[in-house]
Amino acid sequence: MLIEDGDFVADDRVVVRGRRAEHIRKILKAQVGSRLKIGRLNGPLGEGWLTRVAREEAELEVRFDASLALPPASKITLAVAMCRPPTLSKVLQQGTAMGIKRFEFFHCRQVEKSYWDAKAVEPEALHKELILGLEQGVDTQLPSIALHRRFRPFAEDVLGVRTRGRVVVADPSAESMLEPSAEEQVLVLGPEGGFIPFEVELLRERGFSFTSLGPRILRVETAVVAMLGQQMLAC
Amino acid sequence: MLIEDGDFVADDRVVVRGRRAEHIRKILKAQVGSRLKIGRLNGPLGEGWLTRVAREEAELEVRFDASLALPPASKITLAVAMCRPPTLSKVLQQGTAMGIKRFEFFHCRQVEKSYWDAKAVEPEALHKELILGLEQGVDTQLPSIALHRRFRPFAEDVLGVRTRGRVVVADPSAESMLEPSAEEQVLVLGPEGGFIPFEVELLRERGFSFTSLGPRILRVETAVVAMLGQQMLAC
Repeated sequence: MLIEDGDFVADDRVVVRGRRAEHIRKILKAQVGSRLKIGRLNGPLGEGWLTRVAREEAELEVRFDASLALPPASKITLAVAMCRPPTLSKVLQQGTAMGIKRFEFFHCRQVEKSYWDAKAVEPEALHKELILGLEQGVDTQLPSIALHRRFRPFAEDVLGVRTRGRVVVADPSAESMLEPSAEEQVLVLGPEGGFIPFEVELLRERGFSFTSLGPRILRVETAVVAMLGQQMLAC
Repeated sequence: MLIEDGDFVADDRVVVRGRRAEHIRKILKAQVGSRLKIGRLNGPLGEGWLTRVAREEAELEVRFDASLALPPASKITLAVAMCRPPTLSKVLQQGTAMGIKRFEFFHCRQVEKSYWDAKAVEPEALHKELILGLEQGVDTQLPSIALHRRFRPFAEDVLGVRTRGRVVVADPSAESMLEPSAEEQVLVLGPEGGFIPFEVELLRERGFSFTSLGPRILRVETAVVAMLGQQMLAC
């Protein structure tokens, strides 16, 4: 469970409400005195002892220990065409749980413009998904998210310019699967309808690598996890 | 869209209801005359032309073409500890979409017994998830599912005896990740709480390979897709 700055009521005491209080009551079925594994957002891991639990909130005495090792951060930047809210949620949660620290979402032709106006794209909604992903991954280091509402500037001025390492584009036009790499890299995944020929051409002209994800068209959230699983083999 | 035997009202005419009729109306927004890609369950791919669409049902003229190539079937048998209904749904759908043709679900200590009594484990519920996975994968060949309610007979009499190829167990006790293989094999994934020492010992005694999925504990559905993604590299 992640503790944020606003939760502290004393140096070693926090009060959590809402989802976390409910999680403590209903899922963990924790009682006063129970010990919980916790982490401080962008800080160390630690332990909490439940000192009070009510319907709406729970109070914990907390102790953080900077010597507890956080799981290693992924060196991959995940760049995904903006997707429907339920897919966005899965990409953020699963990507974060797998250690991604940098997400780039971009627009392109086959992305519905309405996706950009969804509540799911608002900062609080994005933050919530990242927190859930961190909790799954027993991690505390919040990933960053960049949003790119125009494809061309993203492809020309961000990818390979303001990013580090190779840029790998997953596209059915690729003839083979690229070997995984343990170095810094950007994995780019287009929309479910695919990149249009102009976009593929632009990405090819930029000299990026292309990789296939096999003969089956996967859902975005499935493709993301499959790609990240492949890269784990190089670690 | 998959057509089943019971849908035919004539040799070249089918009526679909429920989810599929709604999909045609609301998602595809198809109208009379629209062409749809279809497949016949356990048969060939083909095309359908919408001849009538009403609130509750849609009628199509269909033509199947045995020369259309189905996507290749995976050689992997996926053996997963029985999981919560929402997880079971994701494992079946995503696994099927990635080409799995054989699922084995098994019991072990850290599996809640109630999972086995869920509606999601009934044959119609399992069938529904497979159909959704086939539709995502533009495939028609229905996978099979076996259920094993006792761990020991499954580990001793099924794994490696009635299955083909190597048996690979994903477990945090493994020190490294196994190289992917394009041969027939069984990938075994334990419950979120892990295998207990007795179970690990039993699986080790049977001579199975063990593989790590990295330093982070992944959700079952994420681990499944990551493992399958890795194996794709060997194809």
